[in-house]
Amino acid sequence: MVIKNMVEKANAIVAQSGGPTAVINSSACGVIQAAMKSNKIDRVFGATNGILGVIEEDIFDISAEKAEAIEALKRTPAAAIGSCRYKLKSLDDSRGDYERIIDVFKAHNIRYFFYAGGNDSMDTADKVNKLAADTGYELVCMGVPKTIDNDLACTDHCPGYGSVAKYVATCAMEAGKDTEALYTTDTCTILEVMGRNAGWIAAATGLAARCPEDAPHLVYLPETAFTAEKFVADVKEVLANFKRVFIVAGEGLKNEDGTYITADAGSFAKDSFGHQQLGGVAEVLKAVIEKEVGIKARFNKLGTNQRSAMHFASLTDVNEAYMCGKKAVEAALAGENGKMVTLVRESNDPYKCTTGLAPLYDVANGEKFMPREFINERGNHITDAMRDYVRPLVQGEAPVTVDTDGLPVYMRFERKPLDKKLPKYL
Amino acid sequence: MVIKNMVEKANAIVAQSGGPTAVINSSACGVIQAAMKSNKIDRVFGATNGILGVIEEDIFDISAEKAEAIEALKRTPAAAIGSCRYKLKSLDDSRGDYERIIDVFKAHNIRYFFYAGGNDSMDTADKVNKLAADTGYELVCMGVPKTIDNDLACTDHCPGYGSVAKYVATCAMEAGKDTEALYTTDTCTILEVMGRNAGWIAAATGLAARCPEDAPHLVYLPETAFTAEKFVADVKEVLANFKRVFIVAGEGLKNEDGTYITADAGSFAKDSFGHQQLGGVAEVLKAVIEKEVGIKARFNKLGTNQRSAMHFASLTDVNEAYMCGKKAVEAALAGENGKMVTLVRESNDPYKCTTGLAPLYDVANGEKFMPREFINERGNHITDAMRDYVRPLVQGEAPVTVDTDGLPVYMRFERKPLDKKLPKYL
Repeated sequence: MVIKNMVEKANAIVAQSGGPTAVINSSACGVIQAAMKSNKIDRVFGATNGILGVIEEDIFDISAEKAEAIEALKRTPAAAIGSCRYKLKSLDDSRGDYERIIDVFKAHNIRYFFYAGGNDSMDTADKVNKLAADTGYELVCMGVPKTIDNDLACTDHCPGYGSVAKYVATCAMEAGKDTEALYTTDTCTILEVMGRNAGWIAAATGLAARCPEDAPHLVYLPETAFTAEKFVADVKEVLANFKRVFIVAGEGLKNEDGTYITADAGSFAKDSFGHQQLGGVAEVLKAVIEKEVGIKARFNKLGTNQRSAMHFASLTDVNEAYMCGKKAVEAALAGENGKMVTLVRESNDPYKCTTGLAPLYDVANGEKFMPREFINERGNHITDAMRDYVRPLVQGEAPVTVDTDGLPVYMRFERKPLDKKLPKYL
Repeated sequence: MVIKNMVEKANAIVAQSGGPTAVINSSACGVIQAAMKSNKIDRVFGATNGILGVIEEDIFDISAEKAEAIEALKRTPAAAIGSCRYKLKSLDDSRGDYERIIDVFKAHNIRYFFYAGGNDSMDTADKVNKLAADTGYELVCMGVPKTIDNDLACTDHCPGYGSVAKYVATCAMEAGKDTEALYTTDTCTILEVMGRNAGWIAAATGLAARCPEDAPHLVYLPETAFTAEKFVADVKEVLANFKRVFIVAGEGLKNEDGTYITADAGSFAKDSFGHQQLGGVAEVLKAVIEKEVGIKARFNKLGTNQRSAMHFASLTDVNEAYMCGKKAVEAALAGENGKMVTLVRESNDPYKCTTGLAPLYDVANGEKFMPREFINERGNHITDAMRDYVRPLVQGEAPVTVDTDGLPVYMRFERKPLDKKLPKYL
């Protein structure tokens, strides 16, 4: 669908959703710069706090921002436009919200909606799109993939993943060197990384192990059922070989019955770990090791630092994120609608990646876990197939601008809000 | 004292002690390269696992390692020679250990002992030196400063500190951007950093706050007594201004009575945080905030990753660490003994740093905390005086060699052990 009924040019809006990444702003930059170049698009707006900003009519004019600020998006982590975790349900259950979104779009002559996010966001974009079509409001909704978790369907990988992969693998190498140096007392280190249901992030650290001596020695993923007995045996075996053990654990490790090990820390840890709401996976594993193996264990929890580590982001990821944003606009202007831009790996060596399009609906209703062949037989490390998959994604270092303080320079929008035209909704 | 009775040239040994840093290997490189250039020194040995390696006669020949490996020390974090936490007591209480050290030195014709570490290590080096003098064994003991904690006496700052400072400040900026983007749900983030008794590391993150809106909004140091009431008031005030709050906490925060807040989580947190051996400072603060302020709090605990983050280390720090190692050798060859190399800030703007020497005894018996004028009046952030102090130390980015995996390349010694000449001791 190409917008045809407009007398004047229409406006576009960009929104960011969910957990930030190092490169979601690079995608936004791709959208904004491509949209501002088009003569079909008048102004480019940003929705403060993602879809919540649309619903609350809290919108600012990105076209009015300085060009340098827009360019600096490529080098700024997190979500500079603003994100949220506001979840819309079905068209029936959240009808008011969906109608409000259309009303706000109408009020500001917004005919292009570019939404960067994960599968929930693609679901939202899809439903907004369908309601617009049902109600005769001409609207183009395009999705831009974003998630460090790398679990979106229909795409080879997700912008955001390459950067977190490069960073956590580097962190595993570095903290691994620390454990190697101090093994006579600090014998075990656990690195907890994100990835609630998919193990892609934890698995990326496996790339750091170039030989058996290297960290990480053990990598545990949510895709493989965790048993404390097997874990303890794994740890003891590594200790026997290398006198130290460096473990990477995805935050969403599950027991054989599918429950999170943090919800029920298992018979091993239960009595030495009583306070489940405080503990993450690392604390559970630490307790198991200290009790069952009898060595000191410490843990590092990178938390939100792993998804915002622009200072060592993957240049490949930054560039692909930009490309996804740009392609979303180009596809919209070429008449596409209701699609998310996907990344297509044309070849692996040399690595060549282009873009494709997938229906929002398909992305919204899929999820992509680590395939079995990327996980070793014992379920405690990765295979060469995984190494081959992730290696191209972490190539190159994104440039960082450092100021006289010796620290990176990250941008912030001046954020001139649009006048509100509608009554307050929420 | 210049070694004079030797028929042949004497050997030197380098040992690393305590918690690793990003640049302790750069210091080792300075020692090794300077020592290998001297015609007074025959071979340069490394003590596997620090002083424990000396005691156990577990020593390897660094002179036999590849020149590239030695050069790569400048770009490799942690302690490549090997470290330990083995603490020697007084000459009386640990006399056997001290005598054993001298015996091992004698057995391998070691007349130069270069020890990189903190004040405990300087104490050990001082005592080894005194015992050698008392027993007529000609030995030169020189200290090389090392600690991320920056709490050594007699020196303006410590190699290792500039790199951790640069990294944690950058992490505060980046995770701060994440909180800024997601404040509608993830309203509060706590970044826990190292520094058990001195707040230098936590304080360095203050440099990231270029304006009141920037993270970190609140910085808590062990030097200032922590009270939950004041903390809650601080948090509420920041929330009122910016709708989010980013907090940095040193791991060693103390109550007004001098006890660690993790040992007694205080009346605020006690009943929502029962399991003290699992909890660090961040968990305590999180519990206080969630209970008393009623917002969601999350925390990042960088752990050993902060002291090993070579991938964004300070070039100034790397270079100064090398200079300290080199100067230790030059001073030893010039007849100095029983001294630690110090860093002397000749001027701040432009920054100029040279080296000096301080008696090992003085360093061993001192400790340097944050001066009051580096902490703001309310005890919840830093002053411009602290910014001026730390800014020059974080300048420049250390070069990182990245391989085809897209990850840094760190070295590991081949480690050819010397034949043992003495009976087993430990």
